[in-house]
Amino acid sequence: MARRSAFELLRTPRPRLPSTALHVIGIALAAVSCGMLLCALLELASTNMDTLALVVSGVLLCIVGIAVSRCTQPSEIRSPGQIFGVVGWTWVTITLAGALPYVIAGTFSSTGAGLVEQVVNSIFESASGFSCSGSTVLSDFDTPGRGLMMYRQATHWYGGMGVVVLAVAVLPFLGVGGLELVSAETPGVSSDRLRPRVSETARRLWVIYACFTAAAVVVLFAVPGPSLYDAVAHALSVAATGGFSPYADSIGHFDSVAVEIVLIGLMIFGGTSFSLHWRAVTRRSLPHFRNSEFRYFLALLGFATWFMVAVLWFDNGFGLAESLRAGLFNAVSLGTSTGFSNATGAGSIGDYVTWAAGAQMMLLFLMIVGGCTGSTSGGMKVMRMQILGVVMLRSVRQSQTPRAVIPVRLGRQVISESIVARVAGFFLMHFLLVVSGLLVLTALGGDFETSLGSVVSALGNMGPALDQAGPTSNYAHAFGQPARLVLAMLMIIGRLEIMPILLAIVPYIYRASAITRSLSP
Amino acid sequence: MARRSAFELLRTPRPRLPSTALHVIGIALAAVSCGMLLCALLELASTNMDTLALVVSGVLLCIVGIAVSRCTQPSEIRSPGQIFGVVGWTWVTITLAGALPYVIAGTFSSTGAGLVEQVVNSIFESASGFSCSGSTVLSDFDTPGRGLMMYRQATHWYGGMGVVVLAVAVLPFLGVGGLELVSAETPGVSSDRLRPRVSETARRLWVIYACFTAAAVVVLFAVPGPSLYDAVAHALSVAATGGFSPYADSIGHFDSVAVEIVLIGLMIFGGTSFSLHWRAVTRRSLPHFRNSEFRYFLALLGFATWFMVAVLWFDNGFGLAESLRAGLFNAVSLGTSTGFSNATGAGSIGDYVTWAAGAQMMLLFLMIVGGCTGSTSGGMKVMRMQILGVVMLRSVRQSQTPRAVIPVRLGRQVISESIVARVAGFFLMHFLLVVSGLLVLTALGGDFETSLGSVVSALGNMGPALDQAGPTSNYAHAFGQPARLVLAMLMIIGRLEIMPILLAIVPYIYRASAITRSLSP
Repeated sequence: MARRSAFELLRTPRPRLPSTALHVIGIALAAVSCGMLLCALLELASTNMDTLALVVSGVLLCIVGIAVSRCTQPSEIRSPGQIFGVVGWTWVTITLAGALPYVIAGTFSSTGAGLVEQVVNSIFESASGFSCSGSTVLSDFDTPGRGLMMYRQATHWYGGMGVVVLAVAVLPFLGVGGLELVSAETPGVSSDRLRPRVSETARRLWVIYACFTAAAVVVLFAVPGPSLYDAVAHALSVAATGGFSPYADSIGHFDSVAVEIVLIGLMIFGGTSFSLHWRAVTRRSLPHFRNSEFRYFLALLGFATWFMVAVLWFDNGFGLAESLRAGLFNAVSLGTSTGFSNATGAGSIGDYVTWAAGAQMMLLFLMIVGGCTGSTSGGMKVMRMQILGVVMLRSVRQSQTPRAVIPVRLGRQVISESIVARVAGFFLMHFLLVVSGLLVLTALGGDFETSLGSVVSALGNMGPALDQAGPTSNYAHAFGQPARLVLAMLMIIGRLEIMPILLAIVPYIYRASAITRSLSP
Repeated sequence: MARRSAFELLRTPRPRLPSTALHVIGIALAAVSCGMLLCALLELASTNMDTLALVVSGVLLCIVGIAVSRCTQPSEIRSPGQIFGVVGWTWVTITLAGALPYVIAGTFSSTGAGLVEQVVNSIFESASGFSCSGSTVLSDFDTPGRGLMMYRQATHWYGGMGVVVLAVAVLPFLGVGGLELVSAETPGVSSDRLRPRVSETARRLWVIYACFTAAAVVVLFAVPGPSLYDAVAHALSVAATGGFSPYADSIGHFDSVAVEIVLIGLMIFGGTSFSLHWRAVTRRSLPHFRNSEFRYFLALLGFATWFMVAVLWFDNGFGLAESLRAGLFNAVSLGTSTGFSNATGAGSIGDYVTWAAGAQMMLLFLMIVGGCTGSTSGGMKVMRMQILGVVMLRSVRQSQTPRAVIPVRLGRQVISESIVARVAGFFLMHFLLVVSGLLVLTALGGDFETSLGSVVSALGNMGPALDQAGPTSNYAHAFGQPARLVLAMLMIIGRLEIMPILLAIVPYIYRASAITRSLSP
């Protein structure tokens, strides 16, 4: 078996192994390899290690991906748990495979790190990329070539592509995520009904996603400041509400109000439900402002900006104009879980770790909430917060009239108790993950504020956190290697809204406990 | 009307004003005044301001209390909201009235504070006392006489007395709090059915409470170290799982392992459901270890101790014996929401702000959880956590099989969805209060860790918090006056499990919004 090469397997068309997970992983690997090879083109002339790393990883992933996808076929899906498993394993595999170029190019060797630390850092950077987080352990932004830096941006874009389909097409269909409210009632799952519907929806979403990215390139290039390279790099990042930038000081590199205003618009677009965008395109109308979640999202951003500007003005004593600039940009950047920073350097006004604690708390709150359901942004999502708020109010009313049966309503829509229970369960799992992540990170030696901020930031796919992991700092300085791996894991868990990763593991726990049981007398 | 004095009203037996709230407030004031007068007896010989303050406040409260209670009669109760209102207003009134002796005696004048700050500090100390929290703004423990210090301990005891009845008799009857699971199904509320049942239960509980306190006095006096005064003072505090001590260094004053072991036992007793104790007495058996909540409670304390001892041993490099002593005492002290400290001074091993962050996080987690339902301890309560855990697991199972209807079970008991919804609502309100409290405190200039610890500590009626509000510090140094008032409010809200205070305010919000509506065109 081991002697039959992938090429031999390619030549024999049948029998294919029935495994949806492997099939999807194969396709995804092939897709990512295209990105690597395209990025390698960017520095074709130069002969540094980065080009070689991209070409080698691209070719390798391409071969493996095509081989795996051609040797397998989608199997019959019997339970949502299986789909979750597929999603979870695909994401983990892509993250590990995506770390390859960094390892080969030795991107993290400049600080004198050993091979193990280089691998850990590469996995962290890859997890941060594909989960659209934007946390970085890269300290040397100048040595890596433009191709590798563009690949780093592209990991965001690929991640966003996966998230959009996951959030709008797959999860709601399985009755998870808040968005099933918008679509019709959740039907039972059968593979032949799921596949055509998901692929049709996915195609539409990718069209919007690609158009959005193209539009972002054009707009960013039109503004004075960014070059075409800058425009493409940041467009890939903002479309996925990621947060990577090829510059160490992120958007602060341009120090331009115009660029920031354009990005604010783009971030809000990216943090809004893509099914709203799709309806806007097909019906040639603007359904956004009739959408209760979007209205609350804008209201939250507005309130947070107002609060922070007030704190910056009164407590920190900044001028009103610069308070407004810093407050608005960072509210939108963290409220959409993008994580761009407009700090021009450590200690500058955009460096929010220097802000009064009240403003930082507001940022932490924005990190927890995140953007709208069905968008590329992370966090708990505004709609879940709305449902939880209504549940809270209901419990007050129920104490007054214990015998009344009070339904949970969102606008005019009655939300079924099973969805309410799932949203509550999600919130609790999120809370438990924050608490256990915090326990682990602090036990590994992290300080309290940095650890809490980083756990919330990782789970919410934000990017920068608080204190030592702030917008002008670096996760490599703030955390040891085990802690970085924990954060990388939390990013993937947060990206997939917890459940897929959990359900990808659950069968193995069942199996392990069954084995333990059979072994015990 | 204004000219008719209270005495005139006393002489005319009818017609009485039908108001349950005023009636209960009157009785409570009279009860507290007895404590003040008893404490005044302690320093009858001395002629300082403290004795005068206690006598004046005692007599005043006694007269007002008897007058109010005799001029009113319980009115018909139509909704649980009314009962909540009664409980909320009584607690607020007692807190304000209980601050009187401190104000008159000038207890907080030694630091050169103005009258406003003295009043704020007195209200804080009184709120902390009656809510069984144990946070203090007292910095000078030597000047106040023994009588006033004993009164300070007695506020805990009165608070605990109220809490026991509230948690075991009133709230479950209204279908709030986790304990309704233990009792029979929640019936509808009517005043004539509620009153005899509550007063019967209350009488039983007070018997146990008083016996427990007496036993605590005997045991503490038997141990070498504490004098009779010390034994009574700490018994009053531990019965209510309060945390006040007449000494600045709390239990560290004795620096005795024996005293700490005795207190650990007493704290665990106080943190356990009083209805379990009652059943143990009447049935002459020990139902505790068959009770799932109590078992989880012990398991949690055990796990926390083990975790902290490990952190103290490895990270802080303390010896194993002293790690165990510090870890166990503080786990039980914060896990039962008592808040005693065994630090012998700032920087000593018992001063947990010097511990590694991991151990402090475990303490924060214990603060959030608190003790058992139906006990005098605060926090979210173990049973609520159990229910939330099961809800979380259910949401995982529901994702695997979306069409299945899975009930929430605790042991063999199926928990009704309405209780689950209320527990979830409680958790969310708790969370929202922590977030908003944190926003307010940090906006008022508090630093992050101190503020978060203090908000959690105040809501959980703990006592000491983290960082600058640690076990050897003082809230007066950590927070400004407005922040102290906010914390005092949070203590009362947390003590009453949020809902009563909320429902005490709701009618006024309704009325205000009705007025606003009638004014608008």
